[in-house]
Amino acid sequence: MTDVDGNPGILSGLRILEIGHFVAAPFCTRLLADLGAEVIKVEPPAGDPVRSWGVQIDGVSPWWSMHGRNKRCITLNLKHPEGIAIAKALAAKSDALIENFRPGQLAKLGLGEDVLHALNPGLVVAHISGFGQTGPDRDRAAFGVIGEAIGGLRHLTDHAPGTSDLPPVRVGVSIGDSLAGLYAAFGVMAALWNRDRRTREGASEAPPRSIDVALTEAVLSMMEGVVPDYGVLGQVRQPTGSRIATAAPTSAYPTRDGKWIVIAANSQPLFAKLAALIGRPDLVDDPRFLTNVERVENVEALDATIADWTRSQEANAAAEALARADIPATLVYTAAEIAGDPQFRSRGMVREVEDPHFGKVLHAGIVPHIPQAPGKVRWPGQPVGSQTETVLKEILGLDAARVSELRASGAL
Amino acid sequence: MTDVDGNPGILSGLRILEIGHFVAAPFCTRLLADLGAEVIKVEPPAGDPVRSWGVQIDGVSPWWSMHGRNKRCITLNLKHPEGIAIAKALAAKSDALIENFRPGQLAKLGLGEDVLHALNPGLVVAHISGFGQTGPDRDRAAFGVIGEAIGGLRHLTDHAPGTSDLPPVRVGVSIGDSLAGLYAAFGVMAALWNRDRRTREGASEAPPRSIDVALTEAVLSMMEGVVPDYGVLGQVRQPTGSRIATAAPTSAYPTRDGKWIVIAANSQPLFAKLAALIGRPDLVDDPRFLTNVERVENVEALDATIADWTRSQEANAAAEALARADIPATLVYTAAEIAGDPQFRSRGMVREVEDPHFGKVLHAGIVPHIPQAPGKVRWPGQPVGSQTETVLKEILGLDAARVSELRASGAL
Repeated sequence: MTDVDGNPGILSGLRILEIGHFVAAPFCTRLLADLGAEVIKVEPPAGDPVRSWGVQIDGVSPWWSMHGRNKRCITLNLKHPEGIAIAKALAAKSDALIENFRPGQLAKLGLGEDVLHALNPGLVVAHISGFGQTGPDRDRAAFGVIGEAIGGLRHLTDHAPGTSDLPPVRVGVSIGDSLAGLYAAFGVMAALWNRDRRTREGASEAPPRSIDVALTEAVLSMMEGVVPDYGVLGQVRQPTGSRIATAAPTSAYPTRDGKWIVIAANSQPLFAKLAALIGRPDLVDDPRFLTNVERVENVEALDATIADWTRSQEANAAAEALARADIPATLVYTAAEIAGDPQFRSRGMVREVEDPHFGKVLHAGIVPHIPQAPGKVRWPGQPVGSQTETVLKEILGLDAARVSELRASGAL
Repeated sequence: MTDVDGNPGILSGLRILEIGHFVAAPFCTRLLADLGAEVIKVEPPAGDPVRSWGVQIDGVSPWWSMHGRNKRCITLNLKHPEGIAIAKALAAKSDALIENFRPGQLAKLGLGEDVLHALNPGLVVAHISGFGQTGPDRDRAAFGVIGEAIGGLRHLTDHAPGTSDLPPVRVGVSIGDSLAGLYAAFGVMAALWNRDRRTREGASEAPPRSIDVALTEAVLSMMEGVVPDYGVLGQVRQPTGSRIATAAPTSAYPTRDGKWIVIAANSQPLFAKLAALIGRPDLVDDPRFLTNVERVENVEALDATIADWTRSQEANAAAEALARADIPATLVYTAAEIAGDPQFRSRGMVREVEDPHFGKVLHAGIVPHIPQAPGKVRWPGQPVGSQTETVLKEILGLDAARVSELRASGAL
């Protein structure tokens, strides 16, 4: 099921131009590249600042090995007219362009959609920003933590009202940016599918070819019934800490060795199994815990009883005992447990990748998994501009002399 | 830019069969339906149990109005041979099938991929499950809270180690399920693009047409540098509560009226503006706060000083003052602030939808936003089986007598 060039990804044959930085646009293009698309990442001569985020070894971050994988890294000086000319020439030969600068920024540089579509009517252009390309807030600075709070995620990521004086928690990764990138990847593929179908059917009109993803909106779209429940009932959903508002017991419980174990035993048979396992078969006949209704009402007492047991156990032993009893449960995984998980390993979702800088690096795998064409890590994140010359030769037909000239002029 | 039938979505012309329940598969198909695909949702005669989740009015949840929107709801009894026969006939006339039963369940019912692909070689089949269709854990029960903990999200959604005895927090929505659904939507569009391109190019081999999304893996893929940092340096990323490990000040701060306000003033100029606004211009020359390095080291003292100011303010007044001073900040939005946000309203991301059951319902909008073809809410979530007859007539050509027969036999 591999294509002619040995690339097994289903997006082989697509060329994507990334003029992006930080997380959202590069995450979008990584998803596309993982499935086989040719991604050309355009960076300024100093490189995408994300390269210097997080822990570094000799100026390179292990994260970059993954965040930049499968992309062809070139430099262009977009403040130089010849840099812009090359960006245009590449856009003319691409299927999609993904960008995440402030709204209007690319147009100011001379890369507005009108210009790009005059060159290439079929180019899908995906814009990712904090608040979107239109509306009163379009020019607000796009900070992930701000967008996550506006989308509703921060409020719900907290202990129940009155439980704690500590502030609501930030999810410890740039979840809003990654969500926006994932939505952009979905939108780009939807638009390309539409474009190619129209072409096949001989449509004369240009296809819809602009995708406008806002971080705030990507987050909001994850909020389930929060908006309709408020609209119909005026009900403001509140956070519930480690628990679920309508089911018990389900929470994270502390273990003797200072870890946490998640247990979800909120059906009648699961609760009976749990009660037996923790040596408290009496709980199933306790009027406080008779059905889910009573258990939710008396959840503090119930969770305290379960925690009495978990606190007496080492985390691994508790996890094994729960698994033997067929009760849904798991350690709260840190990087260490993720790296060692047999299921992740068996599906290539944690895999060793050769990297000239680090030797071997663990990468997360390719999602979604497509068994007949799983894509692959063709190479890890490259140094700034390492394919500038190759790309300009191969795609634009420039010769070495011309590339040197451009480099001397400051366009690259 | 509307299509012939007045449907402006770019996925118009696609037919998607959903044999799913709860959150992940239905969320995937909602995304596709929002962009114009025809989605046929197959439910057992008793309906998808998700219909009874959350708050209800006369047995219908406001969430269902949104979760089920734009879908054609039909019932099939998949334990009845004629129910299976109809499912097959519909699959033969669809572009993709999305399911989220336990791995192997559909095959046991007689709807395995071999059967489906014999009927329809171009059918893309997306499976969503807790752990994936292969590997030692494939048969483990798929609980969202378990998958989120295994993917690494729960560990990082917590206060910094030693700060609190409370357990790590669950994000208050089914984020893992929604992520899996979004990845499936991306995968389906990638596979359909590939299928149609191959067809156009006259490929003789069948295209890759199976998508295998695991909730655990969808979550893991959001974890940025967690896996590579561990692989290269043995570093286990730890949660940082409301803050960011490498920048200060950025956190949520309490206000006089018991709300929280997020402030991200972690650059030198922003910090100076903030110090001036809170009446503490001296802070910029304080040796504890001179640069980001010192601010991160002394973040407890810094955040306490900022909180002294926010505690003296009403939340709305503080937000306005921060906005005037051009400092990135926001209230932590609840449903109420989301519903009233002018930016969300101006982009249709919070919109009123007519619903025969509720009158008007607020829905979240359509993401990604595609300006030339934004899709629309054609109808809200329908009652169980409300289009069974129409769909069987229109797509399979059955007449009313045959439908009655099927109904009498218990197949519907």
